[in-house]
Amino acid sequence: MARRFSDAVKRLLVGRPFRSDHFRREALPKRLAMPVFASDMVSSVAYAPDEILLALSLSGLVALTVSPWIGLAVGAVILVIVLCYRLNLRAYPSGGGDYAVASTNLGTRAGLLVAASLLVDFVLTVAVSMTVFAGYIGAMIPELKPHKVVIAVGGIVLVTLAGLRGSASIRRFLAIPTYLFILAVFATVAVGTYRVVTGDTPVAATSGYSVLPMAEEETALMGLAAVFIILRAFSSGSVALAGVQTVAMAVPGFRAPRGRNAAATLLLTGALSACMLVGLTWLSAVIGIKYVAAPSEQLVARSGSPIGADFEQDPVLGQLAQAVFSGFPFMFYVVAAVAALVLLVAANTSVEGFPGLASRLARDGFLPRQLASRGDRLTFSNGILLLAAAAAVLVVAFRASVPDLIELYLVGVFTAFVLGQLGMIRHWTVRIRRIVSSPVRRRMQLNRVVNGLGFVLTALVLVVVLVTKLAGGAWIAVAAIAVLYLVMGLIHRHYTRVDSELAPDEDDESARTLPPNTHAVVVVTEIHKPMLRALAFARASRPTFLNAITVAVDEDAAVRLQDRWDEMDLPVPLTILDSPYRELVRPVMNHITNLRRRSPRDLVIVYIPQYIVGRRWENLLHNQTSLRLKSRLLFVPNVVVASVPWRLRSFTRARDQLIRRAGDIDAESFRELR
Amino acid sequence: MARRFSDAVKRLLVGRPFRSDHFRREALPKRLAMPVFASDMVSSVAYAPDEILLALSLSGLVALTVSPWIGLAVGAVILVIVLCYRLNLRAYPSGGGDYAVASTNLGTRAGLLVAASLLVDFVLTVAVSMTVFAGYIGAMIPELKPHKVVIAVGGIVLVTLAGLRGSASIRRFLAIPTYLFILAVFATVAVGTYRVVTGDTPVAATSGYSVLPMAEEETALMGLAAVFIILRAFSSGSVALAGVQTVAMAVPGFRAPRGRNAAATLLLTGALSACMLVGLTWLSAVIGIKYVAAPSEQLVARSGSPIGADFEQDPVLGQLAQAVFSGFPFMFYVVAAVAALVLLVAANTSVEGFPGLASRLARDGFLPRQLASRGDRLTFSNGILLLAAAAAVLVVAFRASVPDLIELYLVGVFTAFVLGQLGMIRHWTVRIRRIVSSPVRRRMQLNRVVNGLGFVLTALVLVVVLVTKLAGGAWIAVAAIAVLYLVMGLIHRHYTRVDSELAPDEDDESARTLPPNTHAVVVVTEIHKPMLRALAFARASRPTFLNAITVAVDEDAAVRLQDRWDEMDLPVPLTILDSPYRELVRPVMNHITNLRRRSPRDLVIVYIPQYIVGRRWENLLHNQTSLRLKSRLLFVPNVVVASVPWRLRSFTRARDQLIRRAGDIDAESFRELR
Repeated sequence: MARRFSDAVKRLLVGRPFRSDHFRREALPKRLAMPVFASDMVSSVAYAPDEILLALSLSGLVALTVSPWIGLAVGAVILVIVLCYRLNLRAYPSGGGDYAVASTNLGTRAGLLVAASLLVDFVLTVAVSMTVFAGYIGAMIPELKPHKVVIAVGGIVLVTLAGLRGSASIRRFLAIPTYLFILAVFATVAVGTYRVVTGDTPVAATSGYSVLPMAEEETALMGLAAVFIILRAFSSGSVALAGVQTVAMAVPGFRAPRGRNAAATLLLTGALSACMLVGLTWLSAVIGIKYVAAPSEQLVARSGSPIGADFEQDPVLGQLAQAVFSGFPFMFYVVAAVAALVLLVAANTSVEGFPGLASRLARDGFLPRQLASRGDRLTFSNGILLLAAAAAVLVVAFRASVPDLIELYLVGVFTAFVLGQLGMIRHWTVRIRRIVSSPVRRRMQLNRVVNGLGFVLTALVLVVVLVTKLAGGAWIAVAAIAVLYLVMGLIHRHYTRVDSELAPDEDDESARTLPPNTHAVVVVTEIHKPMLRALAFARASRPTFLNAITVAVDEDAAVRLQDRWDEMDLPVPLTILDSPYRELVRPVMNHITNLRRRSPRDLVIVYIPQYIVGRRWENLLHNQTSLRLKSRLLFVPNVVVASVPWRLRSFTRARDQLIRRAGDIDAESFRELR
Repeated sequence: MARRFSDAVKRLLVGRPFRSDHFRREALPKRLAMPVFASDMVSSVAYAPDEILLALSLSGLVALTVSPWIGLAVGAVILVIVLCYRLNLRAYPSGGGDYAVASTNLGTRAGLLVAASLLVDFVLTVAVSMTVFAGYIGAMIPELKPHKVVIAVGGIVLVTLAGLRGSASIRRFLAIPTYLFILAVFATVAVGTYRVVTGDTPVAATSGYSVLPMAEEETALMGLAAVFIILRAFSSGSVALAGVQTVAMAVPGFRAPRGRNAAATLLLTGALSACMLVGLTWLSAVIGIKYVAAPSEQLVARSGSPIGADFEQDPVLGQLAQAVFSGFPFMFYVVAAVAALVLLVAANTSVEGFPGLASRLARDGFLPRQLASRGDRLTFSNGILLLAAAAAVLVVAFRASVPDLIELYLVGVFTAFVLGQLGMIRHWTVRIRRIVSSPVRRRMQLNRVVNGLGFVLTALVLVVVLVTKLAGGAWIAVAAIAVLYLVMGLIHRHYTRVDSELAPDEDDESARTLPPNTHAVVVVTEIHKPMLRALAFARASRPTFLNAITVAVDEDAAVRLQDRWDEMDLPVPLTILDSPYRELVRPVMNHITNLRRRSPRDLVIVYIPQYIVGRRWENLLHNQTSLRLKSRLLFVPNVVVASVPWRLRSFTRARDQLIRRAGDIDAESFRELR
């Protein structure tokens, strides 16, 4: 009952149960699927330029001029990888992304590594998106800037609740922010470019400042250090690539032909993201926007005076919008608000995508099996809550600092990329061997070259990410991936072992060889209605032998019980078990064990009345002995424990109250209880 | 398995299971019963004089001269009450003390009030005894004085472990400290008196000091204030009476004739305690021993200089021993050590007495029924742990201050006394009416007068305790008693209601009217050995209808299952339940509910395979769905849930390991698992 009540509370909070596979069956057309599944990738434009500038700023002002080139490099990588992934999506249109590709072509271990990487990155996507979200909220309402952690965690809560409700009707609205965001970014870039071209170059808040390099890197942009800085900026900018995985995982959500549609969406999204990223980095370089690690130390006004300790810099996109629409501040708010919204959508997409991967892993035996049925609300919700909790912990631990969180990011994404591309190379190699027709063969060879290029490129980026970020925090992600990999491996080993243990033998006759006799035993503590029902049920099952047993904890009481039994003329013999230690459980156990020893092949069914109470605390007053007895009896071989429920009036009352309170919210759920 | 393992650990810690009724069956002769059960009463001599002196010291030096008279008054009360209780013990020789007397004669509510009072006082006895114990340890080893709280809590832990082991062989040794303590006290008083008489009056550490009254009570010993101070000292001294209840509760532990033997013990103990108390208060007054609330403020040397902030006063008995055996310091250590030991015995007696009262209350339906069987180690231990935890909390909360704890004491003891005596008056009144024989009648009337005197006296002391201590801390005890009274009342009401609900009706035929048909349903998730066993067991119970059901969470898997089923030619039809929401539990529930609706009078037995795992974490990987299904099915009327256990190899392995590790400590316990 208590569970039913908490169910009802949950329902009030997160809404009616829904067909969780709703959006699968009612798959989305491209115009809706693109914005929803691509929100992750598109939204990265809201923080990727910042990370490029920040990484460069460590070596001072000069370095910042490199930013458009880095933007261009990242954009190029996006396009190449997107082109590669179109092949992946078409080859594996049933979804699963790199996990499916890697486990099919490279074996279980590779698939498992991909899965662990993706699980970690789901968490990081939510944490990063919501931290950036807090940054945009702060840009709009400066008073909220000191409360970034609270806002980021609030965003996680919001997204989690939305994920738990998971209503399909909301999903349609999710498309709007993505479209608006793309529009807003292009408008900003276009108007900015127009002003630059017409000589009316916009001036941003940080345009007038110089950037000092961070102390230890004064000699930067020379030799190896310069390469390192640039690679670091490049790897930070690569966050724009994380969204590729989200689209790849979401293939089953597309309308048929799913693979082709997903591939088209991916290409479109990739092209748009690349354009926006290049446009934004170029424009911010022209305007002279600064984004540094420590504003109060690094930013210096032309006059030479530092900027002051309380200066809080806004995200690059926010600064750009402010500069470009300088005569029309309303547009700044529109851009910032739309950016905040698209980040929420992106986080939401991750939250909803997570159970999909988890259920796939559970079906393959890497996670507890109860996670496998995606439609099962309970486990579905538990997965989302786990994800949200992990993301919230990260946000709090890193005090909602985007640069710090970015350090952890990408290891997982690129590990998945590399293994996915490697898997595809093998995929083509296997197929090429089998095919004779030369045009098909040639196309496949071409595909293999494309995926090979993707492999080399992603492997390079992975190396860059590891080299530039491992010490900075990526080791945490690596450790998390390793732990997940190990745990899932152990779970898999356990399930495999148990499966082989439980597999029926050839010509298994165990379902046909019946125990020769059944002994029914009714455990009696008192003569009351629940016991009489247990007795009736035991008789109804027509066992070979039936007797009732009671334990003489109190000898007088046992004698009284026997008298009453005889008096009522109950049609079953009553055996009184001696209990020198005044114990209840052990004499019953001994009796059953002896029964089993006398006739080891027979089946023993123990009937135990169990009270169904209305309020949780009542369980403290009832059922304790029967629960203990049940849990002990389960250990005895060939003994079946049958619980005969008796619903106390307090249960019926509590149920009726609940139904009245719940009203028609979920009357359906209570139907079965009548 | 996990439970079994923790059982084994417990066993290693607290010893083999024992016949918990051991010391009842093998009842103690008086020479052993007296010291064990009387230790509580006797040990109070170790702190009662201190409390009298302390209460008086508040009004300065003059007041201290009253102390022997107060000792005498308390001694007199002890004797009167002991005489009254001899009647109680003889009238109710089956034990239960005032609880039995009050509930028999004054009704449930009075009995319940006595029980609540006694439960609170059990806790306080342990807390006070162990705090005083820490005081004596500190008197012996001054370095330990600052660690009183730790020592007191350590004492509680010691006593709790002893109580949990509860070995009868230890019990015999418990008699020794009590005898030694009585000897030591009498030796001290005798030697001291000899030295006083011969003019060689001993000089104690505090003999030379004057006592300043506490600021606000400078005008004490005049009018009402003086009466209040004296009453307060008297009520503090009455702690010596608390032990009467312990003896009264312990009647069943005596050898037959139990009532008479207990009464004799009580009289002897009472007389000894009274003598010791009078002797100690007299001698300490003669020697001029001081015991005050705040030594650094109240004690002033003859020269006028105060005693210094770091002076820690020893208990009165300790100071006396030091003074009396001034040429022979070894005796001081003997007295202090024996006092500490007897306090441990006293606390241990409470710890062991507590489950007795709890089981009696549980049998009468005031506490959860599983506490009723005293032989059940688990609940027996839980009771002791609860008592110890409560006592430890008190010790820590009052920073091991005896005077503060004494404030809470006695309310419960005297509430029980008053109701017990009132019950005895009613007991005699009822009997006197029925009796004609005039000598018997006259004796009963005399008894009634004695108990009447006891009632008046204890009622007076209760009033004194309440008046002088309520504001000081007794309100906490009153509140605790009230809460216990209410909770136990609610539990009782609940049980009464359920009992009447469950009572079989006149000519209850429910055990004879059998359900016309039985439907057996086997829930199938996979074809494996546990399922085949469940199928075989279901068939063995020869139901009217038998079918297997599986839920098509994954349609392809369901089709594969069906194919395999047909291929194996299993002798039971398989029904595939549709699951649009990919749920597992709800379709099964709906199926069962429909079955029930079609034939409401039939019995439905659902067979569910359940894995028995070896390690607790494995439960996360198995059984989750079946557990959820079971808990939901229990709510459906007329459905019996039968768990068919399957022991995984990991269980067998873990069991074998455990047996190997446990060696022969408790091989017996594992016998049933083979």
